[in-house]
Amino acid sequence: MTDATAPAPTRNDERFAVYADLLLRVGINLQAGQGLMVRAQTEAAPLVRCVAEAAYRGGARFVEVLWNDAGVTRARFRHAPQDSFETVPQWRADGMRQMGEQGYAVLSLVGDDPDLLEGTDPERWSRYAKAWQRANRDHQRLVMSDGVPWCVAAYPGLAWARKAFRGLEPDDAVARLWAAIRTAVRLDRPDPVGAWRSHVEALHRRRGILDAHAFAALHFTGPGTDLRVGLADGHRWEGGSATAPSGAPFVPNMPTEEVFTAPHRARVDGVVRASRPLINGGTVIDDFELRFEAGAVVKARAGRGEAALRRILDTDEGASRLGEVALVPDSSPIGRAGVLFWETLFDENAASHIALGKAYPVSVRGGAELGEEDARAAGLNDSLTHVDFMIGSRETDVDGVAADGARTPLMRDGEWVD
Amino acid sequence: MTDATAPAPTRNDERFAVYADLLLRVGINLQAGQGLMVRAQTEAAPLVRCVAEAAYRGGARFVEVLWNDAGVTRARFRHAPQDSFETVPQWRADGMRQMGEQGYAVLSLVGDDPDLLEGTDPERWSRYAKAWQRANRDHQRLVMSDGVPWCVAAYPGLAWARKAFRGLEPDDAVARLWAAIRTAVRLDRPDPVGAWRSHVEALHRRRGILDAHAFAALHFTGPGTDLRVGLADGHRWEGGSATAPSGAPFVPNMPTEEVFTAPHRARVDGVVRASRPLINGGTVIDDFELRFEAGAVVKARAGRGEAALRRILDTDEGASRLGEVALVPDSSPIGRAGVLFWETLFDENAASHIALGKAYPVSVRGGAELGEEDARAAGLNDSLTHVDFMIGSRETDVDGVAADGARTPLMRDGEWVD
Repeated sequence: MTDATAPAPTRNDERFAVYADLLLRVGINLQAGQGLMVRAQTEAAPLVRCVAEAAYRGGARFVEVLWNDAGVTRARFRHAPQDSFETVPQWRADGMRQMGEQGYAVLSLVGDDPDLLEGTDPERWSRYAKAWQRANRDHQRLVMSDGVPWCVAAYPGLAWARKAFRGLEPDDAVARLWAAIRTAVRLDRPDPVGAWRSHVEALHRRRGILDAHAFAALHFTGPGTDLRVGLADGHRWEGGSATAPSGAPFVPNMPTEEVFTAPHRARVDGVVRASRPLINGGTVIDDFELRFEAGAVVKARAGRGEAALRRILDTDEGASRLGEVALVPDSSPIGRAGVLFWETLFDENAASHIALGKAYPVSVRGGAELGEEDARAAGLNDSLTHVDFMIGSRETDVDGVAADGARTPLMRDGEWVD
Repeated sequence: MTDATAPAPTRNDERFAVYADLLLRVGINLQAGQGLMVRAQTEAAPLVRCVAEAAYRGGARFVEVLWNDAGVTRARFRHAPQDSFETVPQWRADGMRQMGEQGYAVLSLVGDDPDLLEGTDPERWSRYAKAWQRANRDHQRLVMSDGVPWCVAAYPGLAWARKAFRGLEPDDAVARLWAAIRTAVRLDRPDPVGAWRSHVEALHRRRGILDAHAFAALHFTGPGTDLRVGLADGHRWEGGSATAPSGAPFVPNMPTEEVFTAPHRARVDGVVRASRPLINGGTVIDDFELRFEAGAVVKARAGRGEAALRRILDTDEGASRLGEVALVPDSSPIGRAGVLFWETLFDENAASHIALGKAYPVSVRGGAELGEEDARAAGLNDSLTHVDFMIGSRETDVDGVAADGARTPLMRDGEWVD
């Protein structure tokens, strides 16, 4: 059975029930009476059903599923009129805003076909993404400021599985991917919730150490990379769990292996070479290199997908500056899997990475309350977009650089020094 | 494979492409530049993809799919808080309204699990249905007045197939149901579009004959039935195709075998016995009987689902009066199949039927332009609900009754007399 609607995991409903429970308890930490927005592909229906069941049993007031369908999306990007990509229905944007105002938690299930839009005009994706981000700017801000609990997690979709595990039979590829997801989110541990508690504590310790240093910059070196990333004034390190306005902790990414903070938008210099491909809007960008001066990309080159890369950079002024820098050891459980997942949620947790575009306001102290002017003054970048890409490998060294120029080795050959 | 997400027809994509094409050409008659709203279960994704592809290729500007998922719905009706069923999200209602204003055609794909909500508190469905109908009243009016082209058609869902063809293996049941759908929508003819043209012409001829009679009432007799249905003043017979504001004909139901018009809300008297079960909100109502006086139900009894029946009648004042009377010969292709489909779209085209609740404004001359007062004066019933149920069988006789009391035999033993 090679049909996109019938992946093997549909038989794993029992395991999905345990997974759904973990996503709600640890990822979202859903509170009784709260609403839950789920963003998912129709292919993920077996998992979404378990999520809905667990959410309602846990006292959710309403579970609103915003479905997408890969085939419908592909038909649109292939055949719809070009100018129809410039607007988003008003009621869709209103819906995001209203759910945000009502404190709906957001669970995004990723696992789309990495090649979904292959062969379509990238201008269409660019217009669509801009229109969508513009229409949903308020909700994006709310989420990126942890104004509601949110979690991005994965569903073992068939097309994704076949991309990540080429050469395997479809059912085997899905089984392998599902096993990889289970390992990455610690579902294979005897006590997954306890394992997450320990893991989050370890990431919080790492944040504490980095915060204590209060570095002025990080310096990345490796094959093709010599990049100095100045950090935002008053930056703080994030990672593991975040805190909702209610005070309840939640885990924004499952899996997550990173600690991250905000670069200073005007203090990034040097050259960086991506260590893994980047999937953006169903197009693969690979073998690429960016040169920065005073924070901005001044030169970009890609062996594959250069047009798509340029479209990202051209989104707006902030799209060619950095909004995130994240450290992940090469030996992270996901890195150890030795698999290129072709999905940012996984690949970014296998390697240190940086992101073009909008910074998380929580990456500076008091950031969620900062106005636009003050956020910019602190060096926080703003943009409609936020695109992570991997720069770390087992050949990457990272130093922390203090304000006085003193250097502290943080990572050597892709691993933490301490 | 017995999984609800993997019915056999997912393998029939090629046939779905032909079916999708027929639904758009004959059912909706989609015009270039128009928007299309599709209402469907996630299970119907393989057909919805073909519809989207065909619509975009045909020049659709945007295809908005409003997905539902049976499992998510069931989880909600089982476990959500009771008072959460009384409201519909504002943005959802706004969406229906906005799409209506923009002239979006509406394709509804039915084929849900007839027992979807079995075992849940029927009060929940009743609250939900009322809230939904109240929130979407404007859009419902637009559709029922043919203000936009619309079509209700079927998808061969697994749970539905297993209900209609009990005892068969799941794959076989789906294959049988899909074959029945193909026959019913004339997809098995060499020229389905041409076959629909002839069929619609035959129904229009029948309408013409009935309109010429201008009966004051119809009189149904059969086992347990002796019902006089007065017709609305200035009523006209509908059936086959309708006409959109653009002048383009469309077919609101595929399949369709009925001619129908509006009863007078205050002129229905006698007793009627349902000839087939009624599925409403995932609950089965069977073996039931209604007694009417001066248009209103004064006594209701059901062997099964009586509580659900009473809830329909209690929706509002108009829910216990009639909004439609339809004539279908027992020998219709769907009646001939000899199958109880447990789905109104099919079963109502196997037998003459009546509907509790709102009348179609187009059932009286100039009805789409009538104000509420004038519509009521003509005898058109109004309600939040519209629920069809079957009263015809091979033992049913129908007479037309003129204003002076003269009777014209219309049907004998379930068949047209002429």
